Amino acid sequence: MRENILIVGGVALGPKAACRCKRLNPEASVTIVDENRYISYGGCGIPYYISGEVNNLDDLRATPYHTIRDAAFFRAMKGVTVRAQTRALGIDRAAKKLLVKNLVSGREESLPYDKLLLATGARPRIPPVEGRELNGVFSLTKLESAGAVRTACQNGAVNNAVIVGGGLIGLEGAVALADMWGVKVSVVEMADHLLPGILSPDLARMASHDCARHNVDVFTAERVVRLTGRGGAVRSVVTERREIPCEIVIFAAGFVPDGTLAESAGLAVTSFGAVVVDEYMRTSDTSIYAGGDCVSVKNIITGRNGYLPLGSMANRQGRVIGTNLAGGSAIFPGYVGTWAVRLFDLSFCGAGLTAENARKEDFDAVGVSVEQFDRAHFYPEKSMMSLTLVADRNDGRVIGIQGAGPAGDALKARIDAVAGVLQYARPTVADISNLEVGYAPPFAAAMDIVNAVANVMENLLDGRFKPVTADAFMELWSNRDKNRIFFIDARPAPAGKNVEAKQPDWHAIPLEEIGTRIAEIPRDRPVAIICNTGLRSYDSVLILARHGITDVVNAMGGMQAAMKMGLQP
Amino acid sequence: MRENILIVGGVALGPKAACRCKRLNPEASVTIVDENRYISYGGCGIPYYISGEVNNLDDLRATPYHTIRDAAFFRAMKGVTVRAQTRALGIDRAAKKLLVKNLVSGREESLPYDKLLLATGARPRIPPVEGRELNGVFSLTKLESAGAVRTACQNGAVNNAVIVGGGLIGLEGAVALADMWGVKVSVVEMADHLLPGILSPDLARMASHDCARHNVDVFTAERVVRLTGRGGAVRSVVTERREIPCEIVIFAAGFVPDGTLAESAGLAVTSFGAVVVDEYMRTSDTSIYAGGDCVSVKNIITGRNGYLPLGSMANRQGRVIGTNLAGGSAIFPGYVGTWAVRLFDLSFCGAGLTAENARKEDFDAVGVSVEQFDRAHFYPEKSMMSLTLVADRNDGRVIGIQGAGPAGDALKARIDAVAGVLQYARPTVADISNLEVGYAPPFAAAMDIVNAVANVMENLLDGRFKPVTADAFMELWSNRDKNRIFFIDARPAPAGKNVEAKQPDWHAIPLEEIGTRIAEIPRDRPVAIICNTGLRSYDSVLILARHGITDVVNAMGGMQAAMKMGLQP
Repeated sequence: MRENILIVGGVALGPKAACRCKRLNPEASVTIVDENRYISYGGCGIPYYISGEVNNLDDLRATPYHTIRDAAFFRAMKGVTVRAQTRALGIDRAAKKLLVKNLVSGREESLPYDKLLLATGARPRIPPVEGRELNGVFSLTKLESAGAVRTACQNGAVNNAVIVGGGLIGLEGAVALADMWGVKVSVVEMADHLLPGILSPDLARMASHDCARHNVDVFTAERVVRLTGRGGAVRSVVTERREIPCEIVIFAAGFVPDGTLAESAGLAVTSFGAVVVDEYMRTSDTSIYAGGDCVSVKNIITGRNGYLPLGSMANRQGRVIGTNLAGGSAIFPGYVGTWAVRLFDLSFCGAGLTAENARKEDFDAVGVSVEQFDRAHFYPEKSMMSLTLVADRNDGRVIGIQGAGPAGDALKARIDAVAGVLQYARPTVADISNLEVGYAPPFAAAMDIVNAVANVMENLLDGRFKPVTADAFMELWSNRDKNRIFFIDARPAPAGKNVEAKQPDWHAIPLEEIGTRIAEIPRDRPVAIICNTGLRSYDSVLILARHGITDVVNAMGGMQAAMKMGLQP
Repeated sequence: MRENILIVGGVALGPKAACRCKRLNPEASVTIVDENRYISYGGCGIPYYISGEVNNLDDLRATPYHTIRDAAFFRAMKGVTVRAQTRALGIDRAAKKLLVKNLVSGREESLPYDKLLLATGARPRIPPVEGRELNGVFSLTKLESAGAVRTACQNGAVNNAVIVGGGLIGLEGAVALADMWGVKVSVVEMADHLLPGILSPDLARMASHDCARHNVDVFTAERVVRLTGRGGAVRSVVTERREIPCEIVIFAAGFVPDGTLAESAGLAVTSFGAVVVDEYMRTSDTSIYAGGDCVSVKNIITGRNGYLPLGSMANRQGRVIGTNLAGGSAIFPGYVGTWAVRLFDLSFCGAGLTAENARKEDFDAVGVSVEQFDRAHFYPEKSMMSLTLVADRNDGRVIGIQGAGPAGDALKARIDAVAGVLQYARPTVADISNLEVGYAPPFAAAMDIVNAVANVMENLLDGRFKPVTADAFMELWSNRDKNRIFFIDARPAPAGKNVEAKQPDWHAIPLEEIGTRIAEIPRDRPVAIICNTGLRSYDSVLILARHGITDVVNAMGGMQAAMKMGLQP
């Protein structure tokens, strides 16, 4: 069937859909229109180009076989026409025509379509502050900016950088600049913790501490007020609380979906400008599809439409749309929100909602955290993983999981195991307790941490203990003069004794001794217990309960979690 | 409630259930009976003790805090009584009594129970061959054997070892002896490939090649006939085809569930002797529970009862049983069969059924394989992963996934992501195409291999190409004089040209050129195409189809897969 397929946008989803459509329907005429010079590049790789891990900018435009994906490549290998440096100006839906303008020649043209795909992506959100037009101010979305940032670093022109935004891309940029170029990096985040919206405050504290140990200053709950410059170049970032000198500024404060073309054509868009699509990725005009960073799709956990601009989403949606452009009826089921980021010593990963976000979505959400080795505890090469599970108190439904650990792949294995179940089932806490994951001592524990965190959640929901996060425990400790809490360290004796020697209010009562030393614990004061990971303190809580002492909180993740946050008694 | 809980068997599931029960119901009297001296040990760690990676045998009996889990530990810390070296002789179900015998004193005793748990485990399957009682013949299930094997290695008394059985434990043992002690190891497996039942023949070939490169000989489709000895010590293993000299023999030919006690008490057992339990892990007597290596539980994929003796299964079942022994009603949902093993350069991992096994279970099963980088192809640290998806042609239901790769955690992340969905949903191929896994360039590709393998399956089920495994392709190549196949290498020109220079029948026609060189391809002969990973050859297949050439097979996984199997043209 000789259909005319037009695609606006050629970065990730557009080319994917074009190639898929052309494979299924070789007779179709498929044309990609893009206003930029470069198309089909791995924008997610930009931080790794800046760091130097990716050597050439062209590597982000190449296939695994080092062929550059330019117009000639798409023509010869895929039978797809690319019109680069061509802007889509408007859609005439009645006539089924797309008005475009060649940015080089200035010529306008009206292209007929049978089916149209809008893959217009998103723009970086740049706060409207004075000085944002200065030289040295970038965002990390275009290959051209990536080249300029790396060149400046290579030339030794950058000693100080400010990243505005402590989300995924901001932190990837911070790592690239600090780790590889030794730049003094400051991250300014207006939310009260890093990775807001996708990480709980306690795990985010681990991210902050990882940054702090690697020459990255993190300023949270702080807004950028203006940028100052000299001779047209940026010289400092002024926030509500300080002025940070810098030679470059990177805006990584999120994205605004680019639904302009759709909106001006009368297609349905959300309040934040994203194109509304159905499960076939069709807009409100069934001849027009949309996908990737410009659309709003269903969040499977909340059941409401949401926004998740990620390259992996674009690729999977692109294939679905390609099938449908070729006459198929493939479905994109929505998303649960799975992400990963590598910082310095730790990686972070998550799926679904945090407890904080879930409460905003009207779940009666609670999170529990555990620290456990990422493989059999007797296996020599192992590391301590932090895992947080989020569930609804009402029905025990699991609605999210997040974690941190030095072994990124191992962490991702746990998160992805739950992500798939969140996507296609509606798991309860018991389901995750029994979740089957591959086991052998080099890979997992026989009772793996992903099962253990669900077990802890079950104990919490059953009212068997009252949790506090490790940082909340340390705050209680700091305020011990006011709260009259009796603090117990349930670790094996030497660890607790070391602290007790300096801090007499820190009572080293190991799990092994708590039963026989019960008389030492006052019955007219609240009790807070910590151990190394939260396991021994939980057993201590149970013993205290048997002795009638029940006003007790247990520090989840114990000293392991506290240390990852840079906290100690 | 002061109930009497008796548990027979104290290795993994028994102690887990005991502690869980006691936590939930501190009033209960909980007693573990075990005929061995040591209880509560990590039997799965035995290969890693033999290799020396685990330093002391006691490490396998210790908590993460280095406390030995002996009778005193269970008494003091868990409130659980342990009677070691005490054999359970029989159950009087009417009187609710367990007859036991102290193996040290010889005294018999009748212990009353309200609830009884059978955690009797499994015995290693030792083929009834002559010489199996010789010194130097072991199985890897008891700590005592582990100590003897390692001592023999440390003393330099072992130059040659034979492992009987090429399953998970046999291969873990082979790696331990060859990698760490430099022992010349031979593995004898009666099935026609390694890891039978859980790995497809082509992936198993990669395991064989990994072994071969590390001083391990693999003899498949070969049975052990007898063992020879001198002075009471084993001297050789005689198979149907050869005699292999050796100082030690390790039997790792699977397990026989120990359902004797249950059977003699009239409880339902399967034809292979496993105790039958319901989803609450209750036997046919509702006062008696059973779990772990001695039971048969539901295979969620087939819907029929099966057998999977794994430490992780035992731990999860143990917690469920512990809850139920304390009066709860927890459910164990069954298993999909998820496993992992680290060999030398490669790890292997899987879940669900292989295509071969699925066909025995009456599925119209087909498997497809892909080779793809385990992270973004532009990211510098990456490795090639092999992934095989298994689906039912009738309805596109996904029923298994297996893989191999140098990065074990990364491989496990993909397998576990699908395992959870297999356990709690009934995924189709489209569901895995859209499976949401964490994405960032250091962890995954934007179109990740786990999505890609489902995409390839969809293309196969839609009839868009005819697959052959890489080893089948090489067999076609070996038989080219007979089959008249026209062989095409679609890799970029230099790779194919190198082979063509030596082998004129190997036609280097890169994907880029196939459209213009179509006249070179004969129309009266079948065609077989290979490339580096299977991607370029698939595009070549589509181009040939457009030119009317359709009698074409495509080598899945391409030369990458062939090389992992040790094959080349």
